[in-house]
Amino acid sequence: MQIAILGTGAVGPALGKALRAAGHQVTIGTRDPDQTKAREQWAADELPLAAYRDLDAEVFINATNGAGSLPALQAVGHALTGKVVIDTSNPLDFSQGFPPSLFVSNTDSLAEQLQRQLPDVRLVKMFNTMANEVMVNPRKLRDDSTIFVAGDDAAARQTAASLAADLGWTDVFDLGDLTAARGLEMFIPLWVRIFGQLGRAEFNIKLVR
Amino acid sequence: MQIAILGTGAVGPALGKALRAAGHQVTIGTRDPDQTKAREQWAADELPLAAYRDLDAEVFINATNGAGSLPALQAVGHALTGKVVIDTSNPLDFSQGFPPSLFVSNTDSLAEQLQRQLPDVRLVKMFNTMANEVMVNPRKLRDDSTIFVAGDDAAARQTAASLAADLGWTDVFDLGDLTAARGLEMFIPLWVRIFGQLGRAEFNIKLVR
Repeated sequence: MQIAILGTGAVGPALGKALRAAGHQVTIGTRDPDQTKAREQWAADELPLAAYRDLDAEVFINATNGAGSLPALQAVGHALTGKVVIDTSNPLDFSQGFPPSLFVSNTDSLAEQLQRQLPDVRLVKMFNTMANEVMVNPRKLRDDSTIFVAGDDAAARQTAASLAADLGWTDVFDLGDLTAARGLEMFIPLWVRIFGQLGRAEFNIKLVR
Repeated sequence: MQIAILGTGAVGPALGKALRAAGHQVTIGTRDPDQTKAREQWAADELPLAAYRDLDAEVFINATNGAGSLPALQAVGHALTGKVVIDTSNPLDFSQGFPPSLFVSNTDSLAEQLQRQLPDVRLVKMFNTMANEVMVNPRKLRDDSTIFVAGDDAAARQTAASLAADLGWTDVFDLGDLTAARGLEMFIPLWVRIFGQLGRAEFNIKLVR
């Protein structure tokens, strides 16, 4: 499958390499490809880069930070129309330091904001509840754990779930429509706290039922 | 241990019976004992009842609903001074229907509000992330799962953890100070959504690390 990933931080390249290893064709989107290529770390990644406006794909993955997600997606433009967009971002507000608060929560979510601003995309919330090393290698943990998916389009949720399965996920839990993104994003303060106590990001939750 | 539980809804009596079965002396607090005793369901529970103002115990458990928690605890009065108070409540706001939102979240929590209003108690957040049937019988689920504890007083967290162990909990995860209650309360929207998808409350999360 042709996949375009927006974002050159930790999450985008990690997902890109893992999805490429799973047999997908991956392009990474960035605001300025020349600037990104100039970074020493990037040269080693060898993932093809393109400007946001030049991206095209069957599935897009938003791996930019929460505050930058809307402008990044808007920069892609018409190529997004009708496409599945998997949103991995979190509405983190570090303006008061660490731990972060959320800049939207409770009665709304970042995912719902993006869907309202981009009504022609089929937005799915997934991957936001864990660190990138767990996203791409769930078997690294000592037990099976759970990844959640939410979105208004059932076929889009299924597409996202199949990509998770390609990465080794055996328990993809379908939460239904996109209002469930509130719960997925509001999980982050607990995640941050667990991270602080463990001192590492290699953990996840398993839904025991 | 002498334990007083505030609240005659589903949670208080369930915890009361389980803690009594584990060897503790349990009294249930209520605003009006005569009114509570008159309820047919209550007669079968056979748990001793007392008015809030007549309660005394080594450990108190708040199992009233979130909006009623502060007045209930205030009605207990001086008997709370210096005592461990385990807060199981959630700041649920049903004013806009189901699913509920939270009436405090993100940069504050109900537990922190209670601690600020009652500075002489040693408040611990625990039990709020699951249904009462799981609280009192973690072995009912098909796998081990996790219960979290947060509070400013380390010895109080340990007291709460030992009560959880008495109920069969093998994985009590210490989140540190009471600001972690934000994460524990903000987990509820995800809990509510999972509940809706499963159609039952017998589930919990396991921290896989």
